[in-house]
Amino acid sequence: MDIRACLFDVFGTVVDWRTSVSREVGAFAQAKGIKGIDAVEFATEWRKLYQPSMDEVRTGRRPFTILDVLHRESLMKLIGRYGIAGLGDADIDHLNRAWHRLDPWPDVVEGLTRLKKKFIIAPCSNGNIALMVNMAKRAGLPWDCILGAETARAYKPMPEAYLASCRQLGLAPKNVLMVAAHNNDLKAAKGQGLATAFVARPKEHGAGQATDLRPDTSCVDLAAKDFIDLARELGA
Amino acid sequence: MDIRACLFDVFGTVVDWRTSVSREVGAFAQAKGIKGIDAVEFATEWRKLYQPSMDEVRTGRRPFTILDVLHRESLMKLIGRYGIAGLGDADIDHLNRAWHRLDPWPDVVEGLTRLKKKFIIAPCSNGNIALMVNMAKRAGLPWDCILGAETARAYKPMPEAYLASCRQLGLAPKNVLMVAAHNNDLKAAKGQGLATAFVARPKEHGAGQATDLRPDTSCVDLAAKDFIDLARELGA
Repeated sequence: MDIRACLFDVFGTVVDWRTSVSREVGAFAQAKGIKGIDAVEFATEWRKLYQPSMDEVRTGRRPFTILDVLHRESLMKLIGRYGIAGLGDADIDHLNRAWHRLDPWPDVVEGLTRLKKKFIIAPCSNGNIALMVNMAKRAGLPWDCILGAETARAYKPMPEAYLASCRQLGLAPKNVLMVAAHNNDLKAAKGQGLATAFVARPKEHGAGQATDLRPDTSCVDLAAKDFIDLARELGA
Repeated sequence: MDIRACLFDVFGTVVDWRTSVSREVGAFAQAKGIKGIDAVEFATEWRKLYQPSMDEVRTGRRPFTILDVLHRESLMKLIGRYGIAGLGDADIDHLNRAWHRLDPWPDVVEGLTRLKKKFIIAPCSNGNIALMVNMAKRAGLPWDCILGAETARAYKPMPEAYLASCRQLGLAPKNVLMVAAHNNDLKAAKGQGLATAFVARPKEHGAGQATDLRPDTSCVDLAAKDFIDLARELGA
């Protein structure tokens, strides 16, 4: 392998979206006096609308639309379903940007800081640019640039999401390593010729998680237990 | 002014392209045994082809094409004009990437590092993503993300180059400060509602420069003598 750049899935791989969104939902409900909401359930339901919302774009039924907009539409559905009333646009925008305020897993900042010394590092996420920039500023993620769905105008696992990211870096796919905690993401990247690294995040979905506990060896080139371990394996 | 992000012109404002490209051309000519080339003249002639090459895209005569490709086409014209023979594709690619190896003005890294603590900082350059990333890695430019022509798919001073950059940050133009050493860039940014800052670079074109020595007060909100001075003016 001759790796020049490392691309990272973000939701689940870099940040613990479930704990962070739950925290934001809980704080929001308390501040607004909203009763009877289970914050973890709300976060989980919100995330369940994520793939269907992107499928509208992937299938071409809808022109490319950034994730902040899809997240907000999903949030409006949940607000209706839970029967929450009396929220203004600014309140809803604030809650929607909970996805900009996600905490990284504890190994991430140290691991990325090491990897950055040897490689170009960038997210290749379905999150939009503003979401990724605001998250990085808050969490101290030292990205060299922001790539992913908005720069590619395609949602993973569509081939163009990976290929555009390589092309925009001026690199051949074989010189780019896709890092993710999700085997389906790595399978799609491998299908476009990228190198792949699996980092397990066994608590992404909370205790009792049954998926993505181990790398799928049919599409994974290397596995690491966290980002610091990945940096060590790559000599960074 | 309620500024949340600072966007920067790069060629001339952040980096001294003339001295750096001249150095690269001189080193290349020496390594390849090419005689009779004035490196400063070659760099200046290369730069003269820059605006005409982008005009093909601006006018719609050509679909959006990244600057690395335009730079290479211009280089091929110069190689023909100078009668340079015997270069392989890898040689030409290396020389073309001289634009990835430009040195910043002496105040830039300290100024950007200070500004980054208070604002989102990003280039809004006609350079493509790979060019900007490679330049930043080499020079230590601490960008939060890379914006500009390639993410906007429009070359400055077209309105979309500025508007797409604001939109991609999720910010209104009035909350974004465009920083440049060129009044025409700032005039175009101001026309789209951005705030503007002029930083003089009186040696961009060498001794005896006659243009852009002073801010055009009809379109410039603030002026600074360098990036450290700009950080101070903005309280960063």
